[in-house]
Amino acid sequence: MSKSKPVKVLVTPNIAETEKAVKEAVSQRKTLLLVGNCWVHYIGRAKSKLEPGERILMIKEDGSLLVHRSVGYEPVNWQPPGCIFHVQSKDNTLEIRAVRRKPAESVKVFFDRIHMVSVLSLVDSGEFSLYASEEDMHKAILLEPSILEEGFKPISYEKKVEPGFVDIYGVDKDGKLVVAEIKRKTAGKKAAFQLAKYIDAIKEKANREVRGILVAPNIAKDVQRLLATFELEFKALDPRKCAETLKKAETRKLEAFFKEETQ
Amino acid sequence: MSKSKPVKVLVTPNIAETEKAVKEAVSQRKTLLLVGNCWVHYIGRAKSKLEPGERILMIKEDGSLLVHRSVGYEPVNWQPPGCIFHVQSKDNTLEIRAVRRKPAESVKVFFDRIHMVSVLSLVDSGEFSLYASEEDMHKAILLEPSILEEGFKPISYEKKVEPGFVDIYGVDKDGKLVVAEIKRKTAGKKAAFQLAKYIDAIKEKANREVRGILVAPNIAKDVQRLLATFELEFKALDPRKCAETLKKAETRKLEAFFKEETQ
Repeated sequence: MSKSKPVKVLVTPNIAETEKAVKEAVSQRKTLLLVGNCWVHYIGRAKSKLEPGERILMIKEDGSLLVHRSVGYEPVNWQPPGCIFHVQSKDNTLEIRAVRRKPAESVKVFFDRIHMVSVLSLVDSGEFSLYASEEDMHKAILLEPSILEEGFKPISYEKKVEPGFVDIYGVDKDGKLVVAEIKRKTAGKKAAFQLAKYIDAIKEKANREVRGILVAPNIAKDVQRLLATFELEFKALDPRKCAETLKKAETRKLEAFFKEETQ
Repeated sequence: MSKSKPVKVLVTPNIAETEKAVKEAVSQRKTLLLVGNCWVHYIGRAKSKLEPGERILMIKEDGSLLVHRSVGYEPVNWQPPGCIFHVQSKDNTLEIRAVRRKPAESVKVFFDRIHMVSVLSLVDSGEFSLYASEEDMHKAILLEPSILEEGFKPISYEKKVEPGFVDIYGVDKDGKLVVAEIKRKTAGKKAAFQLAKYIDAIKEKANREVRGILVAPNIAKDVQRLLATFELEFKALDPRKCAETLKKAETRKLEAFFKEETQ
């Protein structure tokens, strides 16, 4: 098999040429960029309609789909990986339909004028690594408590509990006290012992049930056993998710600010 | 002023040609697509590093930035609108730096091999309209109660309260009962009266404080006054946000499923 070119580009192709390129891209699981005048119909969880305008359609190797306008960091339409694509043209209009079964969803993108189509074979094995501090993880939980647990309600942060400070202190959906110890790397035995010590100190004073949760991206098997012995719990939380939570919250605040400014 | 072409494309340009095109795009606030081998450093809320690989960089007219890999519907790096861009080349490497002040964030994207650069002038005034049912709004609140209010805890859904059913019934962060009436369009007087009637019925039975919240995308001024008279509250909630909440929750479940399958 000959090595395919990393990029094939057609500038202002006609509908037939575009149809051929799009079919090739989706059947060979390549990445597709399509720029032109389009309109979009979506039916699934809800229904949406996007009127005609010039946009960028991106279809990826894994069958995800994005429609981007010239403004806004979020796509106006999108589908997660695993779509099945149907491509056809009629009356000088190209129809690209992306279908998912569970939940049943369908996005139809219609193009009547193409500025550019690009079929890409991208080689990418580069690793993405993110450093979010434990402080960032604390903040994210305070801002969006459901990332710790549905119904969790933080009460205080770095609360002094002899012999030190607990990271996050709150109540769960049933009103039980919750003490969370947060680690940004694999939770070790030291963290488990530390949490057990705090829980003991709190149980002595508070005459109610206390849940201790060790929060970390992952945990070693033997530490898991140790937690079970102490009747403590483990919650997997990725620092990356925390960083995204913080960033999105900041962005929402910023957008709300701009919205007020312009009204 | 001459009308600029809607799309300018360079295939396998060198670094100098790319630098020129990128500078033109950001200074003239055009949309840029850049495909090639790149690596990314981010410093802001957290720190991240993306190792070299072939990806798509998108910079939009409003100064937002996205780096997309060949898989996954979410960008690996992204910046909201309002970035300031610095473009330079050194040692045959192109550096594009996107900076924001508040919060202080910086993304540096380095390219050493370019497959394609495309500068786009997209004309797009098409409206996006979304239809999410009231049922979708209910589901979204049950799934992500914080979209109604931080700390809200739903208890039941379509609870029978004579003379009918209340949409959402729960408690707020202070333990007060909350009854929410949900409308997918501008809330009218009828909805306000309906909610007032339910609150009255509940207050008669429950010997505690009850908050009534009318939830809708917006509200007429006179209805706002009516709510004040009844001592009821209004919460603006966009059906579109509800639909996105549902879709993202579904997608997360799907991703978790695939993750388990492959482990």
